[in-house]
This record gives sequence, structure tokens and C-alpha cells, in this order.
Amino acid sequence: MSTPALEALEVISGGITTPKSFRAAGVSAGIKAREGALDLALIVSDRPATAVAVFTINRAQAAPVIVSRDHLARSGGLARAIIVNSGCANACTADEGLQTATAMAAETARLVDCPAEQVLVASTGVIGVALDIEKIRRGLPKAWASLASDQGANAAQAIMTTDPFPKEAAARLTIGGREITVGGMAKGSGMIEPMMATMLAFLTTDAAVPKPLLDRALRDAVNDTFNAITVDGECSTNDCVMLLANGASGAAIDESSYDVFAHAVRAVCLRLALGIVRGGEGATKLITINVTGAAAPEEARRAAKAIANSPLVKTAVHGGDPNWGRLIAVAGRAGVAFELSRAAVTMGTTVLFEKGRPHDEKAPEAAAYLKHNDILIGVDLGAGTAAATVWTCDLSAEYVRINAEYRT
Amino acid sequence: MSTPALEALEVISGGITTPKSFRAAGVSAGIKAREGALDLALIVSDRPATAVAVFTINRAQAAPVIVSRDHLARSGGLARAIIVNSGCANACTADEGLQTATAMAAETARLVDCPAEQVLVASTGVIGVALDIEKIRRGLPKAWASLASDQGANAAQAIMTTDPFPKEAAARLTIGGREITVGGMAKGSGMIEPMMATMLAFLTTDAAVPKPLLDRALRDAVNDTFNAITVDGECSTNDCVMLLANGASGAAIDESSYDVFAHAVRAVCLRLALGIVRGGEGATKLITINVTGAAAPEEARRAAKAIANSPLVKTAVHGGDPNWGRLIAVAGRAGVAFELSRAAVTMGTTVLFEKGRPHDEKAPEAAAYLKHNDILIGVDLGAGTAAATVWTCDLSAEYVRINAEYRT
Repeated sequence: MSTPALEALEVISGGITTPKSFRAAGVSAGIKAREGALDLALIVSDRPATAVAVFTINRAQAAPVIVSRDHLARSGGLARAIIVNSGCANACTADEGLQTATAMAAETARLVDCPAEQVLVASTGVIGVALDIEKIRRGLPKAWASLASDQGANAAQAIMTTDPFPKEAAARLTIGGREITVGGMAKGSGMIEPMMATMLAFLTTDAAVPKPLLDRALRDAVNDTFNAITVDGECSTNDCVMLLANGASGAAIDESSYDVFAHAVRAVCLRLALGIVRGGEGATKLITINVTGAAAPEEARRAAKAIANSPLVKTAVHGGDPNWGRLIAVAGRAGVAFELSRAAVTMGTTVLFEKGRPHDEKAPEAAAYLKHNDILIGVDLGAGTAAATVWTCDLSAEYVRINAEYRT
Repeated sequence: MSTPALEALEVISGGITTPKSFRAAGVSAGIKAREGALDLALIVSDRPATAVAVFTINRAQAAPVIVSRDHLARSGGLARAIIVNSGCANACTADEGLQTATAMAAETARLVDCPAEQVLVASTGVIGVALDIEKIRRGLPKAWASLASDQGANAAQAIMTTDPFPKEAAARLTIGGREITVGGMAKGSGMIEPMMATMLAFLTTDAAVPKPLLDRALRDAVNDTFNAITVDGECSTNDCVMLLANGASGAAIDESSYDVFAHAVRAVCLRLALGIVRGGEGATKLITINVTGAAAPEEARRAAKAIANSPLVKTAVHGGDPNWGRLIAVAGRAGVAFELSRAAVTMGTTVLFEKGRPHDEKAPEAAAYLKHNDILIGVDLGAGTAAATVWTCDLSAEYVRINAEYRT
């Protein structure tokens, strides 16, 4: 079998149930206050799937994170189902919270008819409020009854909190004459800077993938996608990305086909991650920050993150103000090597500052560019040759409104 | 002479010209767009004063920072005057900017009749715009003509940018039978997290203080005051705090009186620093963050800064939402030792979370408390005995409005 070419990879419309033998459901279990709002999602693989996951590095870990990590260890990395609720994070809820997360998995396992440790659990919503297990108990049979291979979109709806729209993505690829698919969904609108951890996202594939390769593909993809976005610099207690591979396509991934498979996982993750940023709380623009001229790759990433989290940069872009001075000020305080006399700032293709010298005559050109929805900002640190890309959104009064009124 | 007691220290109303033999002026030089707005401040000591300063650690240093640092080195720490403009930061302005800052000092020195290196320079405003030296040349004689010991309030007005009100403070103390005074003024409303550097603030005293003691008093005070505040996590290219001691009171500070003198400097700095936070861009509340139970003092400070910069915490307080879960989430991601099962969160005197367990029944009590303008938040990390205090303000839609429209 020849190595598949990257050109064979096709990003398609679809989601969590696009890969074969995955079914999903999204129902209302009465967890969210709004009557009838979807708040319980179930994903089932019709056969045991190899399962890998990355979890938040927040030291305040939510109960579902603790339970899912434990289940992955005890099952040896096998899963049949993922049960997810929105409207309540089940975080900072003491032993009762752990009991609730464990019971969610057990009830799901009873329906699926599998060991409890083959069920993974995730929750998202308000921190510190008890999750009512009775609501899960009443919602689960509804989810089980509506489980189908065309219900992925409802599942993507059911995991949303302040998200303005659902995030789904899929990619297709042929390996050894067999077509395989990678699908996924994600939520996330606020408390988004997953850092070395991740985000609430679920991916599926019908390829058969050995656990070490599956794990490597997920970690590599997460590093360049979910870990390279930020809405507000906040890292949640509940972040996780889970990837299930059930082999239903009949195609198996090995070292020779790893690269193109990993690329497909990355493509799906990137689409979901950019969806999270576009749907950031109050966001009106997707901002791509390209940092070049750094002394080292980690310095490039650090400077890009500092710029992406700067409220002054984010409000300037929101207001369409080509205020490149704020970009220089952030780069200068980012704790990385920076040489003002060799630094540069571009917006789109407009050079606003170069070699220590402003080009303010180009401000009107840059202001016109900033009216677009997708903004590219380039900052050269003038200190080396390393580069990094980070994605963020603008900061609007709507962000304040959403978060000042989240619980009230 | 006996050691003066701390009780002898009295915080009084006053400012930069309260200490003897300091005069000041604040005039309009046409740098700000608004007709007649005060934008040029001059501070003159009638005799050469011992001068110390701390400057921004931003690697993009503004021209006035570079020139003032150079003048302090060349004068051996003596100064007769400080010339400050608002409306233009003279930062990222290449060699022309350095020439302008140098010319500002030289023109001032000509009027004062002192060596140019005995004049310090500061600027604040938009980054990357050239400062018109002709406007300074036309404004300086006006400032010189109106220089007086009762013009401190005008000087405090003239250094403002987006500040909603001027910041002045003074303290009085008797040393060896002689009364000495410490006075100061500050500006700063956005781009405020001075970090190991400082803020735009100017202090005067009529005590005679040896340079090493004066330097120690300033650095100690700045660390606990200007370096412990944040409005938006941003560190400016122009931050500086300058302290001039002219000895006009006839009292001299030595090791035996250092502590109470240092306390007076700290009291003035704290009052100015809290004024900066209260007047933070769009701020409606002053928030004191007390972190306890940290494994080390630097971890306490780091966690307090992370909480103070969290947009989710700041918007929750703005909205009067006792959302303690966000405080736990930030503490957990702050990169410090944190033990959820021993952690605690208080607002005012209301315990909302303790020993891994929520007390949501107290949320209404905390919500009532959050209606106040001065908010105290306590977070125990449950990991040790070290503590730190940091001050911040809430995040409002007004912050976004101010910064989205700053230049337009």
C-alpha cells in the first residue's frame, strides 16, 4: 500500500456521526432553565472504539474530568459511549459531584449494555452548582430512543452554553482503497484559552487506529489548534477533547498512513477551534495573529498569546482602529526577546511600522481593512527566525453584557 | 534624636507642591485635540533635589524614558525640574523622538537655568505619533509664567489622558522636630499593569534624603503599591515613577528615621495607586483581591494578579454576580500550588466556598454585598501560609467603548 497523499484529504460538511457506526442524540433533560432547550448529548459507537483524550490542566478539575480520566485508565482506552450535559459544569461540587458523574456513566452503560468504564462523561455550564442526577435519569431514555446516525447536529446543539452557533466539522480520506471519515463537534464561547490542555470537543473516526498513534494524532492536532486559540485567556475546569476510533470503515492506520490521518484529525480540530473563536462571547471578528522574527518557537507562541489576550488590541480591532502602537507595547512586555529597531507590524498587507519607524500615512488603508470580519495581524519581533500563529476574537461590549449577566 | 513613631504619620490633602520649595504649573500647549485642554505640566524644585526613579520594563521603551534614565545617570541623581506632556506618548518614534525628548529637557533647563541633565522628561498618550516640539516650545513659557506653589492641581490635570479624575496625595511627618511633607500626583487609566516596573507618577519631598535611602524608599513603596495594581494587564512603554527630595524642610533622613519616611512614601504611593484603579477605564468598582494559603509569596502574588486580570471575574463583579466558581477556575489555572479540597472563597465576610464545598445558600447575601463600590474578595489556595494583596477594577462595556474609540 502506497503512502496516501495529503491531496487525498477532503474537508466535507458533517459532524460526529459522519464516520460509520456512530450514532448520536441531543435532547432536553430540563437542566437548562429555558423550557425545551437541548442540554443532553449522547454519542454511541456501535462497536468498542479505541479512545484517547486530553484534559484541562486547571488544578481545579471538574468531576466528569476526573471520572473520564479514571475510566480511560481502567478500560485500557476503550469506549462505547460519551454522555455530555450542558447547563451545569458539575465542577467544585465535592464528593456528591463525583457520585453524579459516576452515576451518569453507569446509567448510560446500562442502556448501551457495556462496562461502565467504557462510558466517558463531560459537563459544561455554571461552576459550583450541583448537577441533578434525576434530570439525567429522566433524559437518558429520551436520548437513547432518539439515537440515530443523522442526529449529530442535535448533539452539537445540546452541548452549547453561550455559543451563538453549533460547531461541527468532518474530513474524508481514502486509505488502502477504503474511505475513512473523521468527524467532530465542539462547544465553547467563553472561558477559552485551553493552553496545554484543551476544549470541550468530541471527535470520531471509523478508521482502526492503534492507541499510541491515535493518541499522537490527537495531541499533535490539539497543540496547533485548540491550544492556539483564545477568547478571553481563561482556562476552564472542564476542558476536554475526546477522540474515538471504531474501525467500522475496514481501513487501518499504521505508521505509513499516519501523516495523512493526523492531517485529517488536525483539519477537523482546526475547523472546530476556529468555530469556537468566531463564536467567542460577543465576538464580531476572527483575528489571526502571526508572530515572526522570534528567538525561539515558544517565544513566538508566548508573544502571540500575549497579543491575542490583550484587551487593548482586542478593543482596537473591534473599533476598527489601526492602533499598531498597542501591538508594539504588548510585544515589548511579553517577556520575550524584542528589538524595536528591527520590529514590524502589518495589518492585512499594510505595513504600519517597520525598522523603528511608523508609517502613519497608511493608517486609512489599514482602517479600511479592519472593516472586514477576518483580520490578519503580523508582528515581527526583530529578534530571530521563529514563528507562531494564534487565533482570537475582538472584545465587545456584548462580551461584558454576557458575562456580567451570566447567572442573573 | 529618637526614632519617630509611625503614628506621627498623617495623610493630608495636597499634592506635588505641598512639600516646601516645589512649584508646578499645568497649561495648554495644544497637544491634545480638545481646544484649551491642559496637556503640559512642569514641576520645579527651587534648589537641586536628590532624584530617583523607576521605569517601565517594557522592551519597547519610549524616548522620554530613555532620556530621563540617561539624565539621572549623567547628573549623578540630581534634578531641578520635570517636564511632562499628555496627548502624545513620544514612543516608537525613532531618532526624531529622542531628539524631541532631549529638546524638551534642554528648553526647560534654559528657563530654569540649570544643566540639561537636571531636567527629567515624561510623556503619555497615543503611541507612535510624533510629538511636535514647536508646541512644547510655545507651551513652556506659559508654564514657566504660571509656575507657583498652589498650581499642583493644574499639573495633576495636565498629565491626564483617559483618566476620569486627577490623582493627588500627600503625607506629613515630624522628624527631629522639623515637619516634612511627601506629595505626589499620578495619571493612568488604561494600559495599567505596571509589573516590576511602575506607572506615570511624580513624588516630591522637602526632606533631605541620601540617594541610596531615597532609592530604597521608592522601590519598596512601588513594589507594594503601583506594582500591585492592574486595570487591564497591560504594561505601558512610558511608565515611570520619579521622586525628588530637595531638603527644604531642613530635616534630614538617616537610617534611624528611614522606616517612618519610607512609610510616608508608601502611603502617598498607595493613595495614588488606588486612585488609578478607581479611575480605571470604565471602572465602577475598586476590587481588593486578598490571596492567602499560598505556598510562597510570589505564588500568592501570581494568583492574585491572575484573578485581578480575569475578564470573567471582572465582569461578574461588574454585574453583581457572586460567581465564586470563576475565582476557583482562575486560581486553578494560575500555575501555582492549589488544593481544591482545602480552598476557600469569600466576598466581604460571606464564605461562598470552603473545603471543596459550595455554600450557594449564601449567594443572595454576597449579591447584596456586591452592590457596594469597594469590594473585598478573599481566595485561600489551601496550599500554604503565604499571602498577597492586589487591587483591580471591574470590566464594563464603557471600557470597550473607550478603547474601541480611543483614536477615532
